[in-house]
Amino acid sequence: MNDARKPLREDLAPAAVIENVRPSVDGGRFAVKRVVGEEIVVVADGFAHGHETVACEMRYRGPGEDAWHAVEMLSLGNDRWQAAFTVDRVGLWQYRVACWMDPLASWREGFARRVDADDLRLSAKMGAQLIALAAARAKGAERDALATLARQMSEEREPARLRAIAQDEALFALARKHAPRDGACETAPFPAMIERERARFSAWYELFARSTGAEGAHGTFADVEERLDDIAAMGFNVVYLPPIHPIGRVKRKGRNNIPVGNAEDVGSPWGIGAAEGGHTAIHTALGNHSDFKHLLRSARLRKMEIAMDLAFQAAPDHPWVKEHPDWFRRRPDGSIQFAENPPKKYEDIYPIDFDSRDWRALWQAMHDVVAFWAREGVEIFRVDNPHTKPFAFWEWLIGEVRREYPNTIFLSEAFTRPRVMHRLAKLGFSQSYTYFTWRVTKKELTEYFTELTQEDSREYFRPNCWPNTPDILPYHLQNAPLAMFRLRLVLAATLAANYGIYGPAYELGENRPREAASEEYLNSEKYEVKHWDLERPDSLAPFIAKVNAIRNAHAALQSDWSLAFHATDNEQLMCYSKRAGADRVLVAVNLDPDRAQAGWVALDLEALGLGRDAPFTVVDELNGARYPWRGARNFVMLDPVRAPAHVFSIEA
Amino acid sequence: MNDARKPLREDLAPAAVIENVRPSVDGGRFAVKRVVGEEIVVVADGFAHGHETVACEMRYRGPGEDAWHAVEMLSLGNDRWQAAFTVDRVGLWQYRVACWMDPLASWREGFARRVDADDLRLSAKMGAQLIALAAARAKGAERDALATLARQMSEEREPARLRAIAQDEALFALARKHAPRDGACETAPFPAMIERERARFSAWYELFARSTGAEGAHGTFADVEERLDDIAAMGFNVVYLPPIHPIGRVKRKGRNNIPVGNAEDVGSPWGIGAAEGGHTAIHTALGNHSDFKHLLRSARLRKMEIAMDLAFQAAPDHPWVKEHPDWFRRRPDGSIQFAENPPKKYEDIYPIDFDSRDWRALWQAMHDVVAFWAREGVEIFRVDNPHTKPFAFWEWLIGEVRREYPNTIFLSEAFTRPRVMHRLAKLGFSQSYTYFTWRVTKKELTEYFTELTQEDSREYFRPNCWPNTPDILPYHLQNAPLAMFRLRLVLAATLAANYGIYGPAYELGENRPREAASEEYLNSEKYEVKHWDLERPDSLAPFIAKVNAIRNAHAALQSDWSLAFHATDNEQLMCYSKRAGADRVLVAVNLDPDRAQAGWVALDLEALGLGRDAPFTVVDELNGARYPWRGARNFVMLDPVRAPAHVFSIEA
Repeated sequence: MNDARKPLREDLAPAAVIENVRPSVDGGRFAVKRVVGEEIVVVADGFAHGHETVACEMRYRGPGEDAWHAVEMLSLGNDRWQAAFTVDRVGLWQYRVACWMDPLASWREGFARRVDADDLRLSAKMGAQLIALAAARAKGAERDALATLARQMSEEREPARLRAIAQDEALFALARKHAPRDGACETAPFPAMIERERARFSAWYELFARSTGAEGAHGTFADVEERLDDIAAMGFNVVYLPPIHPIGRVKRKGRNNIPVGNAEDVGSPWGIGAAEGGHTAIHTALGNHSDFKHLLRSARLRKMEIAMDLAFQAAPDHPWVKEHPDWFRRRPDGSIQFAENPPKKYEDIYPIDFDSRDWRALWQAMHDVVAFWAREGVEIFRVDNPHTKPFAFWEWLIGEVRREYPNTIFLSEAFTRPRVMHRLAKLGFSQSYTYFTWRVTKKELTEYFTELTQEDSREYFRPNCWPNTPDILPYHLQNAPLAMFRLRLVLAATLAANYGIYGPAYELGENRPREAASEEYLNSEKYEVKHWDLERPDSLAPFIAKVNAIRNAHAALQSDWSLAFHATDNEQLMCYSKRAGADRVLVAVNLDPDRAQAGWVALDLEALGLGRDAPFTVVDELNGARYPWRGARNFVMLDPVRAPAHVFSIEA
Repeated sequence: MNDARKPLREDLAPAAVIENVRPSVDGGRFAVKRVVGEEIVVVADGFAHGHETVACEMRYRGPGEDAWHAVEMLSLGNDRWQAAFTVDRVGLWQYRVACWMDPLASWREGFARRVDADDLRLSAKMGAQLIALAAARAKGAERDALATLARQMSEEREPARLRAIAQDEALFALARKHAPRDGACETAPFPAMIERERARFSAWYELFARSTGAEGAHGTFADVEERLDDIAAMGFNVVYLPPIHPIGRVKRKGRNNIPVGNAEDVGSPWGIGAAEGGHTAIHTALGNHSDFKHLLRSARLRKMEIAMDLAFQAAPDHPWVKEHPDWFRRRPDGSIQFAENPPKKYEDIYPIDFDSRDWRALWQAMHDVVAFWAREGVEIFRVDNPHTKPFAFWEWLIGEVRREYPNTIFLSEAFTRPRVMHRLAKLGFSQSYTYFTWRVTKKELTEYFTELTQEDSREYFRPNCWPNTPDILPYHLQNAPLAMFRLRLVLAATLAANYGIYGPAYELGENRPREAASEEYLNSEKYEVKHWDLERPDSLAPFIAKVNAIRNAHAALQSDWSLAFHATDNEQLMCYSKRAGADRVLVAVNLDPDRAQAGWVALDLEALGLGRDAPFTVVDELNGARYPWRGARNFVMLDPVRAPAHVFSIEA
């Protein structure tokens, strides 16, 4: 006689099917990204043919673990299943989904519907066979309990008692635990890259170290340290320094990017390398390695970190050019073509040929540069133009560095085409510069941040939004009033959990382009030592400090996925919110720096977790003003002279 | 000295990247579907790092071909590429995408921008090196031409002449053809299942052969032949017969599904198998194999095909039950549980245990059944309840049968949960029954057909829409007027290129349910021989003939993907269109069978290829009426007493 339900033949294809596992990036080719403490909610379709029930399990493991943790998935209906796990440390995690036939569950459903007594008894015997299969795989007391259950189901003849036995949830859970998993299938593992919280929430302050000295003097790391308290007071947590290495003398740039400067010119910090050394050396005017390490520690004491610039390129007098001629591509006349990023020309920079015959040594040397600074204590790298180097190089480099230094964060400066930008994010960069710099209208900002925060790409692309950089004084900031600088700061700091400014140019409202139709700054700090008047009464430093303080106090602003936009009836008024548990922040911005704008906001109450028509209070965290609001429709007026925005917390 | 551009090291990862190849089903795990004569438009993202141009190629091959045909892909902008190929025969085709660096194209772009004469000459020499690399890989005259070009580019000193040389499109196309393909990558092949046109465009007429006899007599294949002219006149091209095999006598069903009938009951044709034979035998009352083959030929002569029912299950007296006891699952008391599709019970049917220990022989036997009928000349199978058999079985069976009989079409009767339905479509069924049967409101129909025709699932899921089946007299047809039968027919026939009816119940408006809240017909033909009065003056046959004639005359109605909905201001009025090249059909349906409905239609002129405010004429193909229309907004009134719909062709 056949078994009521015998195990599937092992040579038979799995009967159960899993489809559409989420989250996933390119079917598991790349990792999804999370930070420590977050949950990964795994959803998948799992089913089999026929009417039989299946069971689904999500399995995960953390870095260094061989064994998988198993979590039973709960049915969402319509053959969809869900389970979640919390990632509690940095590194590469994995998850997968398994699905199998669950004849015990199917049997119990059918059994509960039996009416006829003979029918019920026969069905009970079939259940007994299934339970016996489970008992045979259990041990000790569990085995005994299941064997007893099987015997009862098989021998009991009284329908009411049979029904009562079949209702023992604990025993049937035990039976399912030990039941053979017929027709089981399992997906390949999906990777998840877990980083520390700073990858998701950061406020960057970019600073030229050489401009921190007393008037007329070249700044030093010690001078930078003098600035740290101010930067910390402004609420930033990452201080990013452009390259700190020796600057080439050959073809050194003069002020305002003049192709050949004179002896007094300091040159561009991105023209890396001179007789004194290259990518692991420090510009002597800034200090030495000991000074640099002191700076790293001083920043840490203030709960800030120093981010280093990683620019894999060389000045013509970089030691690599002589030591490794193979690493540079020569033209028919024997010369090396300088770097270009059309229409920009970098006569003081040679690109490195990553396809060199000697590529293994070259790639290793690049890795050693990063490892060198990681050893010194640098845990954040801002990577210059990663899109001009091969994708495979970055995937390898970031993987290698993270293996030894798993806390390392990489910011991709790829101001380039969307697919290239996204590919770099997929292959491992923690954060990416974005097109925010050029998105100004309500429509542009709404569409772009909906893409950044709601589309599938958010699984791997973490935006870092900059209103300005040393390379980009965008058109809307050129000759613009301070009100424009304030409103762009509010947008960056509240739309994006990661943002940064290039200061002190930003807080002092530096707005002069080198010429019309150029995004270059006039007298750009890239080519000269600047002395900034930080004591100017119109400095935005206090305003920035206020905004960052709100960010630091409100979890809602420390992540991006909860972003929701709310309709307004004025194109110059933009309204959006973020939530984190009970914490809710609602922002209304006047996009017009010149005129007061007023209008009605139609709140998406569900996104805010507010009841229909319920009263609530919005508290402007910028100035403490409180407004009683009710329901979806509320009035807002913003005068840019006073404030570019309301940044409300909500008391309900 | 290095080459200006040396080939990438072979041990280096490819520099170029391909993402997001479309069309694809589950990343290439399953085939996309097309029919002979259609185009497959392949789109992919292809790019590399940096600013260098890439080239992309689409490669395809048909069944039996080892070599790949190559088609250069054209840029759609934003790193997206496209190419197409036409599939000219049935079988499994494949396509893939390749991408590589194109330094010659990059060089030409850069060269065209050079201004300085020395710069230009140096750049020309770099171009010469690239061309020389191509020449080295060419042969004969092509090699000579490229060598000459390289020498000219290298030696010519006059800027104007250099520029002129660089503009020779033919020579540079030749150079690109032979240039080394540095950094090349290629995707794995994506499968495409190509079927004959009938898979995409078919009108099915389901008919119980035993009900075609003279009054009181059991019908025969000869009687069915007598009906073929009428069915052909109605415009159908597939005649689907429920199972034609011997019907079991044990537990044979009586009229109206009474569990045990009496000696006179004919039983359900799905209770397959008796002493006379099983799945390869023919019910003696219908005829013999010779009669059946004659019927197949008679249908072919009328440009129709006979579709056979494939129901893998057995009556208790099917020969398999004795010959292969292992193929059936026994209960603890030694009995076999009859089939159930809750709440339906099939006491006259035993399910086959596809997980049997003897599964290899069993699967092979099922295959042999299909192969048997395919040899007899059957090329269309309607598969009964495929969702109760393992997915792997169907994937194997359909693949095996198509290998030998590539013209075979399979229709999946999986009235079950969406993901199971879709999985069956993915693994090879040509067409699938749909939920159309129960979609009645404008909103339901619009949403469902938008999903069916516009979402990614259309690549593998081909709908076949039935207003009724012998199993389903849906609620809206129960006790409904003929007007409802007319409008549901128009919807099925014009929304879906594949549709079918169960006749003559349909054209005679059979509307009586067995009881309230049941979708079973009263006195269902499933359990008795019926005699239909085909001469009834209210028969819908002439109306159906008209609708099918329109379908047969208009290519627009012979495929689904062009479906577009047009807004109306009346919830009972629905408007949609289909296009195929110049052929356009616009349908307006009154969903209310009881009352005339009128309203304004707002046409999507772009979907129809009509100019703004241009005049055009709509011709109602149902009655020849012509209406001059202009622009998007037009008035429609439909009285269900006269016609349920306008089926317009458009003359512009």
